Amino acid sequence: MARPPSVSIHIRVRAPGRRACAEDIVRTVAEDIASGRLSKGLRLPPVRELEHQLGISKNTVQAAYDELVARGLAEARARDGVYTASPGIAEKDPFPSLGAAPLAFTPPRLPPPARRVPGQIELSTVFIDPELLPVTQLTDCFRSVLSSPGLVPFYDAQGYPPLRAAIAERLRGRGMEVDADDVVLTTGSQQALDMVGRALSGGCVALEEPVYSYARLLFEDLGKEVVPLPLDPFGGPPLEVWAERIGKARPSLLYAITSYQNPTGYSYSTYEMVQLLEMSKHYGFALLEDDWGSDMLSCGEYRPTLRALGGKHVLYANSFTKKLLPALRVGYIVGSPETRDVLVAEKRLSTLANVAVTEAVVHEFLDRGYYDTHLKRVQAALDERYLGCLGALEELMPEGVRWSTPGGGPTLWLEVPRSIDLPSLRERLFRKGVTIEDSRNHFSGAPHLHGFRVSYAYLAPDRLRQALERLAEALSEEARRSIA
Amino acid sequence: MARPPSVSIHIRVRAPGRRACAEDIVRTVAEDIASGRLSKGLRLPPVRELEHQLGISKNTVQAAYDELVARGLAEARARDGVYTASPGIAEKDPFPSLGAAPLAFTPPRLPPPARRVPGQIELSTVFIDPELLPVTQLTDCFRSVLSSPGLVPFYDAQGYPPLRAAIAERLRGRGMEVDADDVVLTTGSQQALDMVGRALSGGCVALEEPVYSYARLLFEDLGKEVVPLPLDPFGGPPLEVWAERIGKARPSLLYAITSYQNPTGYSYSTYEMVQLLEMSKHYGFALLEDDWGSDMLSCGEYRPTLRALGGKHVLYANSFTKKLLPALRVGYIVGSPETRDVLVAEKRLSTLANVAVTEAVVHEFLDRGYYDTHLKRVQAALDERYLGCLGALEELMPEGVRWSTPGGGPTLWLEVPRSIDLPSLRERLFRKGVTIEDSRNHFSGAPHLHGFRVSYAYLAPDRLRQALERLAEALSEEARRSIA
Repeated sequence: MARPPSVSIHIRVRAPGRRACAEDIVRTVAEDIASGRLSKGLRLPPVRELEHQLGISKNTVQAAYDELVARGLAEARARDGVYTASPGIAEKDPFPSLGAAPLAFTPPRLPPPARRVPGQIELSTVFIDPELLPVTQLTDCFRSVLSSPGLVPFYDAQGYPPLRAAIAERLRGRGMEVDADDVVLTTGSQQALDMVGRALSGGCVALEEPVYSYARLLFEDLGKEVVPLPLDPFGGPPLEVWAERIGKARPSLLYAITSYQNPTGYSYSTYEMVQLLEMSKHYGFALLEDDWGSDMLSCGEYRPTLRALGGKHVLYANSFTKKLLPALRVGYIVGSPETRDVLVAEKRLSTLANVAVTEAVVHEFLDRGYYDTHLKRVQAALDERYLGCLGALEELMPEGVRWSTPGGGPTLWLEVPRSIDLPSLRERLFRKGVTIEDSRNHFSGAPHLHGFRVSYAYLAPDRLRQALERLAEALSEEARRSIA
Repeated sequence: MARPPSVSIHIRVRAPGRRACAEDIVRTVAEDIASGRLSKGLRLPPVRELEHQLGISKNTVQAAYDELVARGLAEARARDGVYTASPGIAEKDPFPSLGAAPLAFTPPRLPPPARRVPGQIELSTVFIDPELLPVTQLTDCFRSVLSSPGLVPFYDAQGYPPLRAAIAERLRGRGMEVDADDVVLTTGSQQALDMVGRALSGGCVALEEPVYSYARLLFEDLGKEVVPLPLDPFGGPPLEVWAERIGKARPSLLYAITSYQNPTGYSYSTYEMVQLLEMSKHYGFALLEDDWGSDMLSCGEYRPTLRALGGKHVLYANSFTKKLLPALRVGYIVGSPETRDVLVAEKRLSTLANVAVTEAVVHEFLDRGYYDTHLKRVQAALDERYLGCLGALEELMPEGVRWSTPGGGPTLWLEVPRSIDLPSLRERLFRKGVTIEDSRNHFSGAPHLHGFRVSYAYLAPDRLRQALERLAEALSEEARRSIA
């Protein structure tokens, strides 16, 4: 039978700042017994523990315990230890019905996580096929970071400085005004949105509709009112409608995904970006540009960004997560000298700092020139998959189905006739082994679109074709059902 | 001279969901010129770009461009591209004075970051000497994770499942009621506090005073009122005072660091923990226990925890960060089946998920049994440094200086006479090459203590002695100054 754990006692020392003496131990235990702090039958700390804790000699502790036994306050049990012996005035069960009050919480309103079933074809995911990710090169970079100069022991709250410098240089090459000091590394883009949302004055944020659902859910969770700005995957943003809504609601921030918008696949034209910048100045709202997409641009063509056109007040967020390896979670946000400190402060409050090891690995990856080669490879693969997807859709989709033509990237928007019941279609497809998203999560109100995201980045061409064949089947079945 | 970037145009397709034809291109460009969307002299997208984007043939695009040229709306420049030629009705500079409104933000009230000067002796840091950290073993674990089964491509929002299972098993071995499903992995302990703070109903949180400053700053930033509960490094928590304050303010949460409290080094006795649990039930506040310290316990003795004594409603946070490698940032929080989903939801909103690679590395480290061996080594080293520190203090400190006796761990509290001006002492020490913390950050109001944290975990014994010698000098100089 193991001995019971000893109780933990704090010995109160009378002489300030000096070592405890035997009398301090005797007095503390006697007082704790008298007050009911220590009840009968508890094991006192082993001699070597108090010796060590108080930095005093074994003999001093032993003398104190002997004195306690002599006074009848403790009893020594052979090969077991010293136990309290005398009941206190307020004797009671040392462990009455213990427990604690539960946390009173307000759960954020989030949709249930997507069902993941092994073997299902995920037709709506925004991820890139892991087969296209540079795992071998990343492993090399890990090895290099681990060997010389060895693991970085500490972290920089703003992020690993060499990676910040490398990011700034890349962005300057794309016409953006960026210093290493303006870059703050984040856990994916999500933390960038969280940092901006927390720092933001004003209770109102304008978002594209449909929009990346965790942006909307985050701003709502932070207590912001969301102003939805309708986006048409086929025609783009109706800027007059946007200006009207913005003029009424006067948001303090507009968040926009400017290339391969999630979930529509839409890319803003230069004209539309210029208009947004004009509106920003006219109505006084800040712009947060999420540029997850332009790195995946087909043909490596020029894509404009709000940051390049509008300068340093445009907050620009991007991430290596999807393009390198989701599990790395390295993203960043670029602000201005004015916002840098506040963004770092919000980051300190939420996570103090992030994983310096993976930041160093991404730096190594950029420094070796791997990133551009990798992007070219990914772009070529996505281009091929995109064209294959367009061909398959053209061949397989029944009349009345439309899709957007993003020109590359990871996903497009598939719009189905209103007569199709989307939850029913989703369920039917699920039974056929294909998962599509619940696109209602992209909307704050009643959706003005009737469709969902289709990914060609994640699926190998034969799997994609399989999925689209089943989708065509399911659409026909649903159409027959809706007529019947 | 490089060609200017082409403008980005979204071609509006008339036939729903079908490929664009030449007429769609001509119509879009003509309309955009007429409306002023496209001004004169802009380079239209290269043929291969539109070909690709729209999934149509090169000839179709070329035919459309020829038509535009024929209509006088565009002009072809040899070896350069096609440019818009006709001014629109609303002709204007395509790039007028661009810019954007700056972000309107409310900066969190944080103290300025600590000055770090290479070569300074950091006497107040909470970190452990990197020399004591298991860098070689961690590197081995990284290599193993990187080789077989290779890098984990994706992440689990709750955290890498095998690590959650290993943590649960360890905690059960310490008498806690924990399933793998109750564990949520975090970026250090800071994210655990952030998740709880965001989810918490009620506007009031009780904290020890002095307290880990980023806990207080975080709760204040989340809009919570802070109820300070005075903690005496020499006598512990005056529980009657705590009960009175709690009874008045009725907080919904009490956050406590139960072993080697930061910054006092105080460890709660079993009795005090039982009293806290009783108060939790009586007053209805939840308990968030931060147990960063008990792993560093000298002699590997038993330390009680609120979670072991109080059961599954006690939220328990801990981290591998300081004990393995700060740059890894792997921590966790343990809740109940009731709180698990809300904690994961808050984590999704702030960072979606964290770095699966480092989570897998920590799992490998635990799985190989390295952690216990490592902790024993760290404990032995900290014990030695602790006793050395007590000896040096006893020898060097002038009359009137007191220090707490945590019994091991990383830091103790050094209390100096009220006649010493702390900012002046700090400045004087800084000039002598020793940095101490500004301990006012640990207090929400006027400090009831007059001292600072002294670290023996971070400094090699000779460096620590050097620092304490300079501290003794500086104290004497300050004392003379205050008399003069």
